[in-house]
Amino acid sequence: MRIAELLAHGERNVEVTAKGWVRTKRGNKNVAFIALNDGSTIHNIQVVAETAAFDETLLKNITTGACLKVTGLLVDSPASGQPVEIQARTIEIYGLADPESYPLQKKGHTLEFLREIAHLRPRTNTFGAVFRIRHAMAYAIHKYFNDRGFYYWNSPLITASDAEGAGAMFRVTTLAPGETDFNEDFFGRPTNLTVSGQLEGELAAMALGQIYTFGPTFRAENSNTPRHLAEFWMVEPEMAFYEIEDNMNLAEDFIKYLVNYALEHCADDLAFLEKMYDAELTERLRFVTANDFVRLTYTEGVKILEEARDTKGVKFEFPVFWGADLAAEHERYLVEQHFRRPVIMTDYPKEIKAFYMKQNEDGRTVRGMDVLFPKIGEIIGGSEREADYDKLVARMDEMGVPTETMQWYLDTRRFGSAPHSGFGLGFERLVLFVTGMTNIRDVIPFPRTPKNAEF
Amino acid sequence: MRIAELLAHGERNVEVTAKGWVRTKRGNKNVAFIALNDGSTIHNIQVVAETAAFDETLLKNITTGACLKVTGLLVDSPASGQPVEIQARTIEIYGLADPESYPLQKKGHTLEFLREIAHLRPRTNTFGAVFRIRHAMAYAIHKYFNDRGFYYWNSPLITASDAEGAGAMFRVTTLAPGETDFNEDFFGRPTNLTVSGQLEGELAAMALGQIYTFGPTFRAENSNTPRHLAEFWMVEPEMAFYEIEDNMNLAEDFIKYLVNYALEHCADDLAFLEKMYDAELTERLRFVTANDFVRLTYTEGVKILEEARDTKGVKFEFPVFWGADLAAEHERYLVEQHFRRPVIMTDYPKEIKAFYMKQNEDGRTVRGMDVLFPKIGEIIGGSEREADYDKLVARMDEMGVPTETMQWYLDTRRFGSAPHSGFGLGFERLVLFVTGMTNIRDVIPFPRTPKNAEF
Repeated sequence: MRIAELLAHGERNVEVTAKGWVRTKRGNKNVAFIALNDGSTIHNIQVVAETAAFDETLLKNITTGACLKVTGLLVDSPASGQPVEIQARTIEIYGLADPESYPLQKKGHTLEFLREIAHLRPRTNTFGAVFRIRHAMAYAIHKYFNDRGFYYWNSPLITASDAEGAGAMFRVTTLAPGETDFNEDFFGRPTNLTVSGQLEGELAAMALGQIYTFGPTFRAENSNTPRHLAEFWMVEPEMAFYEIEDNMNLAEDFIKYLVNYALEHCADDLAFLEKMYDAELTERLRFVTANDFVRLTYTEGVKILEEARDTKGVKFEFPVFWGADLAAEHERYLVEQHFRRPVIMTDYPKEIKAFYMKQNEDGRTVRGMDVLFPKIGEIIGGSEREADYDKLVARMDEMGVPTETMQWYLDTRRFGSAPHSGFGLGFERLVLFVTGMTNIRDVIPFPRTPKNAEF
Repeated sequence: MRIAELLAHGERNVEVTAKGWVRTKRGNKNVAFIALNDGSTIHNIQVVAETAAFDETLLKNITTGACLKVTGLLVDSPASGQPVEIQARTIEIYGLADPESYPLQKKGHTLEFLREIAHLRPRTNTFGAVFRIRHAMAYAIHKYFNDRGFYYWNSPLITASDAEGAGAMFRVTTLAPGETDFNEDFFGRPTNLTVSGQLEGELAAMALGQIYTFGPTFRAENSNTPRHLAEFWMVEPEMAFYEIEDNMNLAEDFIKYLVNYALEHCADDLAFLEKMYDAELTERLRFVTANDFVRLTYTEGVKILEEARDTKGVKFEFPVFWGADLAAEHERYLVEQHFRRPVIMTDYPKEIKAFYMKQNEDGRTVRGMDVLFPKIGEIIGGSEREADYDKLVARMDEMGVPTETMQWYLDTRRFGSAPHSGFGLGFERLVLFVTGMTNIRDVIPFPRTPKNAEF
């Protein structure tokens, strides 16, 4: 039985076995108290060992980080804060952890230090909590879509197309360094790691109706910020017959479901993170689930920002004007200062959005849709897609997107086109929001950033 | 309401809306019968349109592949094989599909032809069924592990390590073709696409207890076979405190659960595939769930094969002897001819297995474990891992695996080591088995193979 189960509903006064890693050992010459953790919960189980009953060397070797198998009676614990403890009958040491060299000896390591030992940090309370929540969010994503008749769709990672021109790409090759003949390359042409699975997702939506991707995505951008990774996970649902209003409704319902799921399934881990890092964490999560998101157009948003600047003396670093690509400071002003709740902004100038977004009749804006969150900024970006073949081709030509190599994509508009929509959720940004962590490198097991591909 | 729901429990004699793609249209001068499909099920809904009630051009434009929105009364269908039909009141054409150019005009395209139009093949019955089943299997994998306290773990895709030396790798780079200075590369060193998430998975298991990866994996091998892809999806659970027996139990339970899940949730799609491609499909699936897998050692397996060769006159293309890496023909003989059920083979010669497998006391074999399936051959490969630091390092030295760059991996054995095990399931091989398809390119949306990276 794992420790989470022993703590939650282990039968009293029967012999149990617990296996896990030592978090702390304390005690006196008569008794040792060993806090054991197996990763199934943030909580440790206390093992009580009468020193007289055990070999001295064995007890000495029980140090922080050592791995043990313990058998003994599960009894009500007299100590506060723990329902049960184990009166040890036998203790076997699976693996030692030399106190001189084990890096997780003392408490209170900085997150920066733990990043350098990313291979060991899941053994800490913080990263145990973060990665359990990350799991819960991934599962909730699959459950949400499965329960609603969406199909999981695996867009290719290696691609010969540039998707949406969303960012700089990594080249994938089997050519030896210095070789340049792509005819000799594995795929007989230059190939890259995908920046988005959307275009292939659209193909699927126009056949299966409702699909979602959820997989790794790549950007070869030289951004050393707490918000960017070169390799990150993205969720991209795509739905036939959804117009932008349906798309907004889905995005809001989806993200509220996920946050609710965390509140319901990760209470212990959230309580720990709240105590250690972010006193307003669960309050912020509850607020998101309890309130309607504000919906407004880009044009309305710019007006609010201009007024704030002109009449309230709000200072922005970057200029605000109709046509500007809003910066994080602008988004956060709207979300955190003006509306004080999440915002769904729509109908952006076509110049700052991708070629595939549905063109509005005003000729100036497209049916893009961004969901803006407190602390995080943009957590979801999406749009209704341009379903009209001629309009789409015209826009691609205007923007210099090659139509010859995109015939497969255009075929969705050539044969049985339909209104359809979709969006992308940056999975790590979601996990950042739900855990209250502030650096994206702390919510993915092994972050990939410029000059950093350890482990 | 989607068509699957209308067919399953749509209320009779109320007006409904259906949206989908035309599969066929037939009829006479008084009435048109339109078979509409929206991807939610293998079944179409029949739309009955009185020709007198609709514009002639509109009816003419309703051709195979066109996308429609239909409203009308849902009524019991007089036709056999369908519970309901829609008496059309309005029909709107979302998108045309020109009969002269739409490639899915006629039925009975070959799978080879459909592979060339992989962007449209999800619109066929066959690939609709395959990809719905693929989804169901992915969801079942997440559900199985989540329900049992495993955490989803995302090993990195871009890696500077060579994992297990499992195969040739793709290089990931931002260097321009011809440039060779890795100091200038994105990560400041050569990096590759992962061939397995196992090693990073072990790190997580030694902290969170039970984890699984499920993501894309890459092999740059020039293998043009119906069983190999350059980009495929792999499931890799890894469990602390599991010995090989526990590992075998988990693998057998897991795969039976998945096959059962398909039988329970994908009956219509399986029935279609059985009718069209593989008359024994569900029988084979039921057989797997109903029978214990045979468990035997490699040594016992070789003895059976040698006897078959020597006393029964069975002819093998490749030689059989203790120490040989068994070929597919050998595995299939054991599974299909000798035992007639799935086989879990264990304790392989160390020379033919990876460095991380637990070494047996005989000094010759390791605790590897392969699950062998009818038609598929190896569907799962795994092992108990070597938990002893010194033995592991000795084996790495023998096999020329660099220990200097693998200190992060060795730290799991240096600090709090424990018995642990894991395995890898090739997701597409599972989908092959469950769908009865015979070419792995037909169970992944966009296959990546030598000289082929279309879409």
